Amino acid sequence: MMSKKLWGGRFQAETDQLVDEFGASIGFDQLMAEEDLLGSLAHVKMLGKTGILTTTEVEKITAGLHDLQRDLAAGKLQFSKANEDIHMNLEALLTERIGPVAGKLHTARSRNDQVATDFHLYVKRRLPKVLTAIKQLQTVLLQLASENVETVMPGYTHLQHAQPISLAQSFLAYFNMLQRDYERFEFNQKHTDLLPLGSAALAGTTFPINREFTAHELGFQAVYSNSLDAVSDRDFALEFLSNASMLMMHLSRFCEELSLWVSQEFNFVELSDAYTTGSSIMPQKKNPDMVELIRGKIGRIYGHLMGLLTTMKGLPLAYNKDLQEDKEGVFDTVHTILPTLKIFTGMLKTMKINQEQMYASTENDYSNATELADYLANKGMPFREAHGIVGQLVFKGIQEHRNLQDMSLDELQAASPLIEADVYHELQPKVAVERRNSLGGTGFQSIKQQIKQAQLLLQKEA
Amino acid sequence: MMSKKLWGGRFQAETDQLVDEFGASIGFDQLMAEEDLLGSLAHVKMLGKTGILTTTEVEKITAGLHDLQRDLAAGKLQFSKANEDIHMNLEALLTERIGPVAGKLHTARSRNDQVATDFHLYVKRRLPKVLTAIKQLQTVLLQLASENVETVMPGYTHLQHAQPISLAQSFLAYFNMLQRDYERFEFNQKHTDLLPLGSAALAGTTFPINREFTAHELGFQAVYSNSLDAVSDRDFALEFLSNASMLMMHLSRFCEELSLWVSQEFNFVELSDAYTTGSSIMPQKKNPDMVELIRGKIGRIYGHLMGLLTTMKGLPLAYNKDLQEDKEGVFDTVHTILPTLKIFTGMLKTMKINQEQMYASTENDYSNATELADYLANKGMPFREAHGIVGQLVFKGIQEHRNLQDMSLDELQAASPLIEADVYHELQPKVAVERRNSLGGTGFQSIKQQIKQAQLLLQKEA
Amino acid sequence: MMSKKLWGGRFQAETDQLVDEFGASIGFDQLMAEEDLLGSLAHVKMLGKTGILTTTEVEKITAGLHDLQRDLAAGKLQFSKANEDIHMNLEALLTERIGPVAGKLHTARSRNDQVATDFHLYVKRRLPKVLTAIKQLQTVLLQLASENVETVMPGYTHLQHAQPISLAQSFLAYFNMLQRDYERFEFNQKHTDLLPLGSAALAGTTFPINREFTAHELGFQAVYSNSLDAVSDRDFALEFLSNASMLMMHLSRFCEELSLWVSQEFNFVELSDAYTTGSSIMPQKKNPDMVELIRGKIGRIYGHLMGLLTTMKGLPLAYNKDLQEDKEGVFDTVHTILPTLKIFTGMLKTMKINQEQMYASTENDYSNATELADYLANKGMPFREAHGIVGQLVFKGIQEHRNLQDMSLDELQAASPLIEADVYHELQPKVAVERRNSLGGTGFQSIKQQIKQAQLLLQKEA
Amino acid sequence: MMSKKLWGGRFQAETDQLVDEFGASIGFDQLMAEEDLLGSLAHVKMLGKTGILTTTEVEKITAGLHDLQRDLAAGKLQFSKANEDIHMNLEALLTERIGPVAGKLHTARSRNDQVATDFHLYVKRRLPKVLTAIKQLQTVLLQLASENVETVMPGYTHLQHAQPISLAQSFLAYFNMLQRDYERFEFNQKHTDLLPLGSAALAGTTFPINREFTAHELGFQAVYSNSLDAVSDRDFALEFLSNASMLMMHLSRFCEELSLWVSQEFNFVELSDAYTTGSSIMPQKKNPDMVELIRGKIGRIYGHLMGLLTTMKGLPLAYNKDLQEDKEGVFDTVHTILPTLKIFTGMLKTMKINQEQMYASTENDYSNATELADYLANKGMPFREAHGIVGQLVFKGIQEHRNLQDMSLDELQAASPLIEADVYHELQPKVAVERRNSLGGTGFQSIKQQIKQAQLLLQKEA
Repeated sequence: MMSKKLWGGRFQAETDQLVDEFGASIGFDQLMAEEDLLGSLAHVKMLGKTGILTTTEVEKITAGLHDLQRDLAAGKLQFSKANEDIHMNLEALLTERIGPVAGKLHTARSRNDQVATDFHLYVKRRLPKVLTAIKQLQTVLLQLASENVETVMPGYTHLQHAQPISLAQSFLAYFNMLQRDYERFEFNQKHTDLLPLGSAALAGTTFPINREFTAHELGFQAVYSNSLDAVSDRDFALEFLSNASMLMMHLSRFCEELSLWVSQEFNFVELSDAYTTGSSIMPQKKNPDMVELIRGKIGRIYGHLMGLLTTMKGLPLAYNKDLQEDKEGVFDTVHTILPTLKIFTGMLKTMKINQEQMYASTENDYSNATELADYLANKGMPFREAHGIVGQLVFKGIQEHRNLQDMSLDELQAASPLIEADVYHELQPKVAVERRNSLGGTGFQSIKQQIKQAQLLLQKEA
Repeated sequence: MMSKKLWGGRFQAETDQLVDEFGASIGFDQLMAEEDLLGSLAHVKMLGKTGILTTTEVEKITAGLHDLQRDLAAGKLQFSKANEDIHMNLEALLTERIGPVAGKLHTARSRNDQVATDFHLYVKRRLPKVLTAIKQLQTVLLQLASENVETVMPGYTHLQHAQPISLAQSFLAYFNMLQRDYERFEFNQKHTDLLPLGSAALAGTTFPINREFTAHELGFQAVYSNSLDAVSDRDFALEFLSNASMLMMHLSRFCEELSLWVSQEFNFVELSDAYTTGSSIMPQKKNPDMVELIRGKIGRIYGHLMGLLTTMKGLPLAYNKDLQEDKEGVFDTVHTILPTLKIFTGMLKTMKINQEQMYASTENDYSNATELADYLANKGMPFREAHGIVGQLVFKGIQEHRNLQDMSLDELQAASPLIEADVYHELQPKVAVERRNSLGGTGFQSIKQQIKQAQLLLQKEA
Repeated sequence: MMSKKLWGGRFQAETDQLVDEFGASIGFDQLMAEEDLLGSLAHVKMLGKTGILTTTEVEKITAGLHDLQRDLAAGKLQFSKANEDIHMNLEALLTERIGPVAGKLHTARSRNDQVATDFHLYVKRRLPKVLTAIKQLQTVLLQLASENVETVMPGYTHLQHAQPISLAQSFLAYFNMLQRDYERFEFNQKHTDLLPLGSAALAGTTFPINREFTAHELGFQAVYSNSLDAVSDRDFALEFLSNASMLMMHLSRFCEELSLWVSQEFNFVELSDAYTTGSSIMPQKKNPDMVELIRGKIGRIYGHLMGLLTTMKGLPLAYNKDLQEDKEGVFDTVHTILPTLKIFTGMLKTMKINQEQMYASTENDYSNATELADYLANKGMPFREAHGIVGQLVFKGIQEHRNLQDMSLDELQAASPLIEADVYHELQPKVAVERRNSLGGTGFQSIKQQIKQAQLLLQKEA
Repeated sequence: MMSKKLWGGRFQAETDQLVDEFGASIGFDQLMAEEDLLGSLAHVKMLGKTGILTTTEVEKITAGLHDLQRDLAAGKLQFSKANEDIHMNLEALLTERIGPVAGKLHTARSRNDQVATDFHLYVKRRLPKVLTAIKQLQTVLLQLASENVETVMPGYTHLQHAQPISLAQSFLAYFNMLQRDYERFEFNQKHTDLLPLGSAALAGTTFPINREFTAHELGFQAVYSNSLDAVSDRDFALEFLSNASMLMMHLSRFCEELSLWVSQEFNFVELSDAYTTGSSIMPQKKNPDMVELIRGKIGRIYGHLMGLLTTMKGLPLAYNKDLQEDKEGVFDTVHTILPTLKIFTGMLKTMKINQEQMYASTENDYSNATELADYLANKGMPFREAHGIVGQLVFKGIQEHRNLQDMSLDELQAASPLIEADVYHELQPKVAVERRNSLGGTGFQSIKQQIKQAQLLLQKEA
């Protein structure tokens, strides 16, 4: 008795049913059905072009593949676990439709280079979507920055009021993080845009194939130059997961701030009803669910990165079944970061900013203390000494429940005779912000310049 | 306009559709549908018992819930994304069937304690399955050990032949690893077997509920003693993921060895056709797919652990939406480790051991070198000196392509006059193994003793 | 030429210098010097007891080891990279002092079981310190809970005011998390308290050793029952890292809350100067450095866990050099969590709680909305309906900048005629808290009961 | 009483001693002492150039910094925990030497932008070393490939003999992996080569600084365009850790293969004594310690990546003390991957390849089965049918202990009449390899072409 499996020539017994189910990847690799058909179309065209198959064979197979494409698009294809994976499933469907000639499609091709090709193609086709979604979020951030150049709010370090800043400065910080994310996903294309097809099982093939033709057909920039590497490389997927991890890390930071900003205590912004939810028990609740869910989803992305890194550890060349574990994490990452970016974009677009509350928050604190120290330093006092004097004034203020601007000139001069009446001007939060025009600083001029640069970046990417 | 959501009283606009889809958990939390109904049944019984609901109300709700249980078992329930999660879905279905009295089921309960209860119950009901599956694998290992007490093979350190051992010693090593896994999953029950229900949203309730009654109904050993902790604790899930990670780590080690053992180079065992697959391009291939797939699946389990640890980092009390990310990793872990354990059990049961090849491998190496050093040490030579002398004999042997047992007594005595003719007996691999009867050693007596202890352990667990 | 290394008999060339440096573990494993000496003392005593060494040999070696113990305690021992690791270093020092008899100490022992023994002993001796430090932190939490039973503050879900709670409820939630941490570290002892010594390189030994004697000498509860397992098992270390990860996760949550509580916006607590630092540029800053540093240190602990899990993946039996990577993460974890727990204890002890500010925060929000819904439900309205009505009142309140308790009875009755004058009593935050006396709830009686239970737990552990 | 700390103006009490120790970073950030001095020198030069400090002040400070540089190089600087970090330590030493004018160095600078600058500079200066070390390893691989074009060995998938390949193909696969590593570290420079200095604490400064001048002085390509981003961005470090993780992943795969290749079972290569070690108990052992240690060290690198990703999760802007945890993992990664690459290079250079054993291994297996299937497919049989026929011949061969080339032409023709006498030529392993000249295949011509391309790549990088 010979196994009924396509690969079963030397086998005398069937695989255990649980084994079939556990080993089958059709449950998730059907997400690459489009890519598998595209790859087969290019492969058969090349087989024709190089004379490996006859024109008639190529035409029959091509027609069958187009047929499958149509049915796939229409949601009419049925896949079965018995056929293990998307490749075997589509080959079986093709055979049903066009007969044994379908078997010739597998000439000079193995599942090892086929699955690698599908996976490359899958990521290659998603990267532009990710780039676009990042850019849309950047566009909103830039819009918000433009609208809030003079919106003054507390700047924090250690979550303590540090110095007043412009809200635009904060939006631009996130713009810049996303810019680096954009550049990393752009770089990700380099190692994705490599065609493995033609590497066969591991060693290349004796058929006179033309890999560059296939690459051109599929829009790949280059072919893998080594067959062992081609069938076992998953760097492009790891780069994708690593880039997604950093993207989610940036967004988790923004979520953390939004979570604070919408709290009753900060009350800096209000999210639209469209991006919040209520409580089934507490009628007053308006929960920033999306903010928290996105923050929480960082876990799965880090997990996918760690998962694939772990799986790849210590695998000998070339293909090993362990590699089947490469895809689900990447698919889930795509399905997480695309909606995340879109929701973030919509959430920011519709959020209401409480500018008065932000400003009020800067007027009742000591975040102008650096101004006073700088003021003294500008008059020639070593900064360290100025720092000490102001620190003691702050302590006095805390005990007496007064801010620096509430102290009389006499009191201030008692601390240092260098202080004059013009100090009160500099102690105003808005003035403090306005004046920080060092390159990249929060001063209004600096921010306008940052916005101009950011606009250029966005245009260049377009 | 008021939102149509169950929690929508204070909302004026509907949520964005993408938000609804992204936030919905029904896609995965429907795996807890059984648990949700069980929890509701116990809750309503308690509400009746304490007089919070009337007997009539309790009867109506209970009948409705039983109805849902039947339809769920029959695969007839349809869930919708519009109803977000399993709790809202089942409540909506209940309302359809029994009318507005269904709303009373939510008395003294919030989704926060409800979801925590479902999740606890889910893990609580899977732990015994995991324990049983581990034990079944241990049983096969013990059987294999019993059958191979005198099967001599090379023992490795650094993947170099070190000293000959009994194959049973190797099976027993894995038995012991699994024993620790068993004990960890057993301990996992302690922090799983705690009922959160009755904690309400975060602070408990003013209704005169009886949590201990509900706990007893559901088979929980105890109730959470603090409501904030109850709704935000996911330790039991982290313990589960951590335990599963260690289990998979042990199995990855065994897989690595099996992968070597079935290689042409080692040729120590042959796996059954039922647990291997072929290649679509290379007709001779018999690939240990399951061995590699299980080894590869360690990545997802480590990833799930890291994912939940990441999500939990820095979450303030009490419930946050981030916590919705707690479940998928645990569900996938259950669906990974249960079949993994079963397949491993079947794979070992059906594998063919090439005992001759194993023994042959020990006769053509230098793994009896320690015997010679011990022989000299037993005759009073400091071990360090014996080690040096034997090392030089080995070097000589490698150069002359001879093993230690192939050298003449004269040659050996030239290295040390302490060596006598009885040395050849001790240089035999089987003798070397047989004599290592220190407690836990690979000597045959020691192994028989280990097997006896292991049998007692398995019986105790039963 | 023969290598000068202790193991160099068969080697003709010396190792590369960079290799020596890279491979040497003495830089970190000297932290186990005490344990190595303790292990050797027990081993030699056993070798004497079993007659493997003579009394004279045992006495000489023992005296030499005691000598080394004294010098180690006095900080006088010098270790060298040339001797690779702590075992070789101490053996070399012993040989210097007592001559070649030192070589006999290595009888029936390999570095494989020796290093495993040292490492077990290291963890075994640190676990009680960790347990004690957790308990000290629990003690402070319990003290703070006792002092703040009636301190009312906003309870949060989604970082939104949810329902008022007692501050003690919050402290007790952390007490409970730490209680589970305590129980996990206690369980950690089971798989730590196993002696590997006597397993030799991998297979046990032919010498008539007595492992149970050695175990008793060193205070181990049991010996490993299988030698392959004994030299390659690192479960106890993984359990330690996993437990430490969960501990740090809990503390990161507390840190997050403290970080909020000390912000200008919340202003709920003030940390002592002793646990905060300033800024070199902003004179007013009082930064909760320890809070943030502890939160940040979660990264290294998660990293150590993931690191060892990764290293262990796919290692064949028995000892492999990869295992040398097991220790640094554990050592660093010990050196992180012990001071973390101590600093946390001190920080909480000395922190000032602004009870007025906390209460004020509950009076100017809608966190009493659930009270109103419960009030209506208690009067027979289905909870879902009550929820809707209160939601609309909250919306009205937000638009008119009024809280629920500020609305007139007429206004409230317009929403539902079930509302009567007694509602104003129930809308008071303190009353809302006081009444939540369901088991584990935030009601004052419930809290007092929780405190009593917690005290019993602490005493039991003592 | 005022705190003696440099930032202590508003503090009334000293920090707890354990806090000082726990918070101090001088234990590790002293590794950036050189960078800190370089940064200060550029900063003071800029302060002079812009007229913020006088020429005399600049000269005094510069002289003092040069003095410190000399003493640092000579190993004469003593750092103290009391001064917390490298910045405070160097400032204190400078003050000792040149008096209070040292305080002016801190003008328009905060520790937040200073530490970020030092860290950027540290990584910026190590990247070229990493690039060079990768290239050296690539050079050896290319040399080995050139020497082994016609060295035939078994090619593996699933660790089963698949098809014979050239050993050079294997070396070139690793060359390509390293090429991608190289390109990633090159890209890493882009986000490293950004100067944060001049961003001050978080918001920029009012001093008329010239950041581009400072950048030019320090060799930075650009300055951060936003101050909040500048002080809180650690992307460059995460990129470094991610790149190092992938590098170590590749090396772990190579180590796995080397570990197999040096085993008694494979016996494909022998490592030099300089890169192996012995056993203290088993005199014959020659352990590939470096191979295993490098494989094991993947754990710490993955751990560092996961650690920093975790630490960064959810941090609000701008600087938080959590960020102090960014450095140790990066430092350790540098100290791991540089020696790893060097040792790998030396180990490969000195390893002995057993070409006969490799070839012999291909002659006694069924790895020529694909040749036979391709042979039939070339004669017009659908590949799937050919595969089935060959599979059955293999099964027959296994049962009769004969290889395909050992079967008579009659026997083969019984399986398919398409088979003719020329089949025996194609069944030879060397012929099988030689003919696989598809682009990237293992054929000798293909390999020579790959080598040429690789040489061009190496030259381009030079």
